Parts: sequence; structure tokens; C-alpha cells
Amino acid sequence: MSNTEDKSTHTLVVSAPDRSGLVAQVASAIASHGGTLVESHNHTDTQQSRIIKRNVIADAQTYAPAAIQQDFTETAAKLSLDWSLHNNGEPARLVILASHASHCLADILYRWKSGEFNCEIPCVISNHENLRSMVEWHGIPFHFVPVSKDNKQEAFAKIDDIIERHRATTIVLARYMQIFPAPLCAKYEGQLINIHHSFLPSFIGANPYQKAFDRGVKLIGATCHYVPTDLDEGPIIEQAVVRVDHSCDKDDLVRLGRDVERSVLSRGLRYHLERRVIIFGNRTVVFR
Amino acid sequence: MSNTEDKSTHTLVVSAPDRSGLVAQVASAIASHGGTLVESHNHTDTQQSRIIKRNVIADAQTYAPAAIQQDFTETAAKLSLDWSLHNNGEPARLVILASHASHCLADILYRWKSGEFNCEIPCVISNHENLRSMVEWHGIPFHFVPVSKDNKQEAFAKIDDIIERHRATTIVLARYMQIFPAPLCAKYEGQLINIHHSFLPSFIGANPYQKAFDRGVKLIGATCHYVPTDLDEGPIIEQAVVRVDHSCDKDDLVRLGRDVERSVLSRGLRYHLERRVIIFGNRTVVFR
Amino acid sequence: MSNTEDKSTHTLVVSAPDRSGLVAQVASAIASHGGTLVESHNHTDTQQSRIIKRNVIADAQTYAPAAIQQDFTETAAKLSLDWSLHNNGEPARLVILASHASHCLADILYRWKSGEFNCEIPCVISNHENLRSMVEWHGIPFHFVPVSKDNKQEAFAKIDDIIERHRATTIVLARYMQIFPAPLCAKYEGQLINIHHSFLPSFIGANPYQKAFDRGVKLIGATCHYVPTDLDEGPIIEQAVVRVDHSCDKDDLVRLGRDVERSVLSRGLRYHLERRVIIFGNRTVVFR
Amino acid sequence: MSNTEDKSTHTLVVSAPDRSGLVAQVASAIASHGGTLVESHNHTDTQQSRIIKRNVIADAQTYAPAAIQQDFTETAAKLSLDWSLHNNGEPARLVILASHASHCLADILYRWKSGEFNCEIPCVISNHENLRSMVEWHGIPFHFVPVSKDNKQEAFAKIDDIIERHRATTIVLARYMQIFPAPLCAKYEGQLINIHHSFLPSFIGANPYQKAFDRGVKLIGATCHYVPTDLDEGPIIEQAVVRVDHSCDKDDLVRLGRDVERSVLSRGLRYHLERRVIIFGNRTVVFR
Repeated sequence: MSNTEDKSTHTLVVSAPDRSGLVAQVASAIASHGGTLVESHNHTDTQQSRIIKRNVIADAQTYAPAAIQQDFTETAAKLSLDWSLHNNGEPARLVILASHASHCLADILYRWKSGEFNCEIPCVISNHENLRSMVEWHGIPFHFVPVSKDNKQEAFAKIDDIIERHRATTIVLARYMQIFPAPLCAKYEGQLINIHHSFLPSFIGANPYQKAFDRGVKLIGATCHYVPTDLDEGPIIEQAVVRVDHSCDKDDLVRLGRDVERSVLSRGLRYHLERRVIIFGNRTVVFR
Repeated sequence: MSNTEDKSTHTLVVSAPDRSGLVAQVASAIASHGGTLVESHNHTDTQQSRIIKRNVIADAQTYAPAAIQQDFTETAAKLSLDWSLHNNGEPARLVILASHASHCLADILYRWKSGEFNCEIPCVISNHENLRSMVEWHGIPFHFVPVSKDNKQEAFAKIDDIIERHRATTIVLARYMQIFPAPLCAKYEGQLINIHHSFLPSFIGANPYQKAFDRGVKLIGATCHYVPTDLDEGPIIEQAVVRVDHSCDKDDLVRLGRDVERSVLSRGLRYHLERRVIIFGNRTVVFR
Repeated sequence: MSNTEDKSTHTLVVSAPDRSGLVAQVASAIASHGGTLVESHNHTDTQQSRIIKRNVIADAQTYAPAAIQQDFTETAAKLSLDWSLHNNGEPARLVILASHASHCLADILYRWKSGEFNCEIPCVISNHENLRSMVEWHGIPFHFVPVSKDNKQEAFAKIDDIIERHRATTIVLARYMQIFPAPLCAKYEGQLINIHHSFLPSFIGANPYQKAFDRGVKLIGATCHYVPTDLDEGPIIEQAVVRVDHSCDKDDLVRLGRDVERSVLSRGLRYHLERRVIIFGNRTVVFR
Repeated sequence: MSNTEDKSTHTLVVSAPDRSGLVAQVASAIASHGGTLVESHNHTDTQQSRIIKRNVIADAQTYAPAAIQQDFTETAAKLSLDWSLHNNGEPARLVILASHASHCLADILYRWKSGEFNCEIPCVISNHENLRSMVEWHGIPFHFVPVSKDNKQEAFAKIDDIIERHRATTIVLARYMQIFPAPLCAKYEGQLINIHHSFLPSFIGANPYQKAFDRGVKLIGATCHYVPTDLDEGPIIEQAVVRVDHSCDKDDLVRLGRDVERSVLSRGLRYHLERRVIIFGNRTVVFR
């Protein structure tokens, strides 16, 4: 559950068909370069018979990232591994999109400023102007890209251009109230994270708090998930709920929900940035 | 949040159109008989402009239940109140229906034996024989009523007969895996309580744990609700969730879910037995 | 559980020896002025035989605050009531003290800006300069009052002067790392709120996260409480915990604890500002 | 988090000074016998620079438990490992001690009967007779060993004799209200599990619910821990809390606490039985 890796480490993620000896082979490859395992998680998916591994590796003097990259490419080919080896000295580049509501954006910026996220935030994009001052106070450029019925294609072309120009590696929709076009969702698959203000699959779509109030549920929740073509239905990264009762009107649900939304999104985002999340069909492995 | 009222008390529940002075009038009526308020809850539903009150009343020497019943009937007529006044010395009569799974039934019987529920349990009905020994060990008669495709009407006529014969005031479906016929649901409306093994409205219907596994949710839950004609969709009394992760297969969800189901059902049942639950359309007020 | 009362309402809090008819008398006094109960909570303390009531009262046209104040003064004398009647159109005046850590302060300012707290914040006081920019960005004056071993008396005289000058009605120690002098604690009894970064009474005093780590607890917590002479031991308003495990080092506890501290403090502060908290010896009644 | 291992597997627990290559060497040793890792947890304790591993190993045809035991003994000597290899086909033998309160004992027996615990329960020992019928209904022998001021030494000699005779590998104090003699605590160190009815280190010793009530805490809890010489102060396995408020009197705390106690004890016991708990000074690693 530890946070923001030492910048001198590497994070290795491996996914491969399960078989005896695989863990030993991967561990041996790391050890042969003098690497030490700081953190090590394994999961065996019995249904699909796959092993998923995540290792944070501290480097010995003899260990050169370039060497292990090259070496691991060979090992992986031999062993039929899906793998990635990430240098934690190279922070992710996070672009955030928001609309009018500030709570999720404010929480991410706050945690980023506190050093909880190992990333750079090259810019924030919004279809409203009201959050500009808060963003710029953090020293982050703010791009106002208005979206209307008539300019959608143009607006999202502009958004995509901004994302590309800033070389974003992760994009977060922090209560961004516009539907992302399917081609962009496809382009950024596995990098595009959304927060939905309900406990999915309950209350998919618009106005989940009104729906929750009308249904009389005793808990409300929030869901952080990857965005597929269908907005609310991607692989779930994190969820949480909070208790409500008959004394809560819809505005109370909205207010209480804000706290859940922001903490669920920030937690899910941290898992993603620390490469703790492995997408597995429509499900996720999250090595907390 | 206190439990199982002193048997010398009465519980008054009032629902009425909101207007100035109503609380004072009800409180005055109680005081005029020398009653003392041991517990007092109020809720104003602003949408429907109704006041809902629940009072537990300790009796003064001058206070006679028959007198207050009569007096209150007059007050209620004058004030257009829906009301009920229950003598807590007269325990509810609870009939439980179960199938093969024992966890919910066992939990209810355990709490009942521990004095947590102010009720009698005149019998348990099941379509399997495997729980007979546990029920009879508690000194409670066990009725085996097999249900098949072909004998449904006959079986439920028999079940209704047993319920009637035992003068049940509350009926609990403790993971009873047969669909209650609509006419019986209507007959026992507001007295018939079910536990659904998901966080409604997610995963309505059969096999919710399989559905939860397939969807990759990070929390699973249970819902205690009144049964309307449509099995999973009545007013919700209580809900809770438990965290799960990628290491849980479907059997783990079933096992972890059992703990949530039994505690949610027992808690909801207690609220109902203590007359803390007021149905309000498809929602509930629960004065905990 | 609803939030920040309509500014046209009054909040009445009553504490009195329990006896039959009291609730009726208070309710009648309200009704006689045409007041309507928007929210109504009652608690009977059986040990001390006292009734505690909190009512939010919406005014009818015929209802004049001055009149009810006068009338209630008479009623209260007759009935031996402790009572207060607060005009919710007059917001509390909150002064916050912080040191170097920003999380609690940032959360309070954020919620205040979002309209979650019915109060004014005339200033923030700190013994460090690092939070000035954040405070001033919110349009709130920032007072830097350094505290050292040698200037304690002088520094706190200055702090008290600032508090008085801004007519504070509530003072919050938002991870303020200086011990408040006993005379100031006495002067602001019931108005001075602290957040302690442990689940009291565990880990009283300095370095609670280190102590929690050394003890190997599986949950860490935070406690919002009124400050008496002894810093960590006043009446508790609110507490919460978060799960930790062996993978968390002390820095992880600090990081995870920040989230609990800020939400516990903000929740407790809201209860206090909405006059939901009634101190009762070393315990509190909190009408959520 | 999965439950009750396949009986054809082995569980390997290793603790060793941290160094590069260790995980590879252990994994290679397993693989060289054709073993497959079904479950694999690793923890690096950075303070003490130790690696702790737990592996559940499924056997290949070529894999013989006797062979791996022998082989691992050699490996361990070479690598300075503390290690244990347990055949999951050989269930633990659990002896439970209880007094008058039934909730923890009932919960353990219920889960055992449901197949949640991979253990045998050769007997239950109590200093009261009231739980005999419940125990015997489960088909488990019940030993009544009265304990008084005068017969303590004799009584515990008898208890120790029963434990030995039944070859217990785990002993649970399920709200057993007698203090275990220090020599027995020493004899069964790491095998003797207690449930304390508070959130330790709060409210150590007798009457924790009364103390919690008097202190006015907003959460009450329970702690499952190994018993050292000092009854309440051993390594903590599991803890949980439940919310309470001013409406709860001491009896309500006791009632609500029962639910937490029984679930915390059962969860901690399961972790222990599945060899998920590694004691580490006065702390524990729990691989859930």
C-alpha cells in the first residue's frame, strides 16, 4: 500500500500464461542484474490460467536500466510475456479535464502539491472558466475549450491536440460533463480515467443522485473506471460508498457524494499512476 | 439506536400532513395521560409536506393503555393522523421461511435466543429438511413444505395456512429461494421482509454474485427490503457492503457476502420489529 | 443529517431535567408563535434524567425572533431550562489556527468556499508563513504569529487579541502544533475545537503515528474534540478510522491519516457550527 | 483473500534477511520440484531488512512432499532461512475455551460447520455449563472445568492436560474470562489467540465497554491478538470498529460490540489457520 516509489526504482509488470517456473525465471532475470525486490505482488487468474506480477525493483550498482530493458526483451520473447518496465524517475504526464464542479479537481491538485502523486500536470482543460484561478494558483496552465452542440467535433479536435502537445500519458475526467467521442476513447484506451457519481452498475447515466434518492437506497457511492466507448461501463478501478438516510434530501446526497467521488478518484488515480492496475478484460487487478 | 424496548412501554407512530402545532398537540395528548417520552424521533418530509413521528412512551401510574387508545382515536380523527399505538408487552409473532442456506436463519435464531429481538417465533417453514435439526434445537417447530413446479399453488396455500394459523405479524424470507406468489405479497404487504444478496438496484434477480464477479465490482453488498409484487424492488430498509478484490473468486464473494447478508437482514428485521421503519411510497424512514 | 440551515430559520437547543409534558410545553411555545419544526431531535439521558432537544424552526409571518426570545426567556425560567435560540441568518465567526501542515486547513477552506459551512472566516493565524498564499487566495487575512520557547506568553496574548478583535465565536486548531495555554482553553471552553491524529484514547500526546506503527495496530484514526485544559482529553465530537496493514510504513500512516484527520475535523466542525453538538460532562450528544 | 486452501496444496512460509536473488532462489527450489504457485505474497520489512514470503504450492506429479521437505531443509540451511512447509491436507486441531458468553463460540462453530475453517475441533473447554448443549449439538465434546480463586493451579493443569491430550495446534480464548497463567502462555506462544472487546491499545483490561461509554467515544472496537504473558498486549492480528452515538447506553455498546468481536475473532482465526499471519516482534504481517 506504499506510495510514490523512490525515483531510483523501476516497476516491472508482467502478464503471462501460468506455468511452473515462471516466477523463478522472472525473479532470476531481475537478480542476475543485481536488482532487489522492494515490493512484489502476484496474482494467478485461475479462470484464464494467467500469472500477473508487479515488482518494484531497486537497482544495484551493477544494474543498468538499458541493460535490463534489452535483457528483458529477450527473456520476454522466450517466455511469451506481456511486460512493461517503467523507470520511476520519469514521472507520468497527467492532463485533467473538468467542467464546473471543483471538488475532484481540487483534491487531485491538492494531493499532487502534497507529493502524493508521482506525475507532472502539464495542463488542465475545461469547458468553463470558473476553475481557472484555482488551477493557475497551482502554477498549472489552464485551457478553456468551450463545448456546445454545434462545435463538438472541433472542440474535441482541439482537446486532442492539447493532450498530444503536452504528451499526456494519463488523462483524467474529473467530473467532466461532456461525453468523450468514441474515437478518442479508443485512442487513449487504458489511459483515460473517469469518475462516475454512483456505485456502478447502479444508476448508470445522468442524474445518479436523483435516481438514488428516488429509489431510497441507504448507501450512495462512486466509481473510478477506465473509459471504453460506452461512458459508464469500463473496467472498474475503485469504488466506495457512504451511508445516507431518510433525513437526506437530494442536495445532501450530492454534498455527501462529493467526498466519496473525490477520494475514490484520487485513490484510483494513484493506483493507476503507480502501475498497480492491470486491465484484464472488463475487470482489473489492483495490487494495493 | 437502543434495543428491544422495555416491555412496559408503548410505541406510537404518527404520520400526518405537516403544520404548525402538530408536534405540540401530539406531545400534549401523551402528557395529558402522564406519559413520558423515552425515545422520540421526528422527520419532516418536505417534498410531500408530511410529519412522521415515533415515540416510545413510558407509562405513568395514571396512564391506562385502553384510555390512551380511546383518547388517541379521537385526537387522530380531529388532526387527520395516520397512527398506531403498540403495546411493547405484546411481542410480534415472526414466521421465518428458509431454503437450504443456513446463515441468515442461524443469525436470526441466535439473536432471538440472545434477547436481541422482541418477538416470538412460532415456527420456521422450509422447502428443505436440512435445517430442521438447528431449528428444533432452538425449541421452534419446523414445517417442511416442499415446493416444485407442479405443486406451487398448493404449497403456498399450505404456507399461507401455516402463517395464518400461527398468527404471524411479520414474515421473513431468510434466503428463501422460491418466488412468493403476488397475492400473498399483497396480503402481507408491509409485513413481508426479504434479503437480496446484492446492493440493489445492482444485480437484480438470480445469481448476483456471479454477476458481480463478471462486472468486476470492488464492493459487494446486500439489501433488506419489503416485498412488493416484484421480488427485488420493494422499499429498502437496510443495506451494507464489503470490500472485495481481484483475489476473490466467485466462491469468495459468496462466502464474504454471507456475512453481509446475515447482518443486514438481522439489522433490518430489528428496525422493523421495533417499529422504527415507516414505509413512504417506495422509500422508508428508518428511525435508528 | 441535512446541511447549513436555511438562513431564515432559528435553531433552538434545550437541556432540562426530564419530566412528563416538557416536550409538549416547548413545542407549544414554538407553535404559539406560528413556528414550524423543520428538524427536531430529542435525547433522554436516563442516567442523569435530562432531556436534550434541538429544533430548527421555520418562521411564520406572525413569528418575530425578538418576541420568541422574550417569550422563551419566561418559559425557560418557569421550566428550569438551559436553552439557546440562534438566528441562522447570523453566521458564526470562525478563526482557524494552523502550523505547517496544510491538509486540515485546506479542507476547511475548500468546504467553506463550497458553501458547506454556515460561517464567516475573518482570519487564519499561523506560526509559519508557508500557508499564507493559500489562505489569501481564498480572500482571507493571514496573521503570522511566530511562537518560540521564549515568547509563548507574548505570542498567545497576541493570538487572543486577534481572536477577540475578530469577534470569533468558534476557534479551530487545524493541526496547530503549539499547546494552547490553559487560561485560553478555559476562556474559550466549548468554542475551541482540536483534531488529534489518533483514535483517542489510544496514542495520546506526541507522535501518535509512530506509536501506532510501533504497536502494530490494524486501523488508525483521528478524533475531533473540544479542548479542555488537558490537550487531548476533552469531549469527543467525531472519530473515524482507516485500515492499514504491514505494508504501511510510518510515512504511509501519516499520508493515510491525513485523509481521516481532515474529514473528521470538517465533519465535527460542521456539527458544531450547526449547533448539533451538546456537551454533557465529558461526553457529547451529536444530533446528526 | 481466498479461503481454506485446496487440501492437495502445501503452504510455505519463509522469513530471511533481505538480499538480491532470494526470491528467485526460493521460487527456483519450488519449480525444480514441479510445484506451481497458486498464491504468492511477499513483504520486505525495510527496518529490519527481512523478506517474508508466503506461497501456496500446488503439486505436480513429480512433486513429493517428503522430497521437498528434505530438499528445502538443505536450501534453508544454505540461505539462512526461517521456514515452514505445511501440508494443507493435515488440518489444524483447534481447542476453544469459553465462559458464559456464547457469541464468539457460536460464530466459530457456525463457520466451522459451514466449511470456512480448515481445522478439526476436538473439544471445547468452559468454566460454565451453559454452552454444553450448543457445543454437543455440533458433535463436539464439551469439557466443564470450573475455575475458582482456590483451584486455579489445579484447573489450569487440567486444562493443559486436555489441550495436550487432544494434540491442539491452535487454542482460542473465545471470551474466556479467566486469565491464562503465564507458563501456559509461554508454552503456547504463537498458538494462543484471544479476542479483546476494545480497540487496543484503548481500554486495556476489564470492563472496556463501560470505559468506552464513560469516555464518550464515537466508535467501539475489538482486537484479535496473540497472547503473551500480559493478557491484552500481544501482537495484533485483526481489529475492527463500529459506530455508536449518544443514544447508546452501555448495554447497547455490549450488544453492538458482540457483532464486532465475533467477526474480528473469526477473521483473525481464519488468517491464523491459513498461515497468513507471521509474527514479527510485537507486530504481525497478515497476508490477506
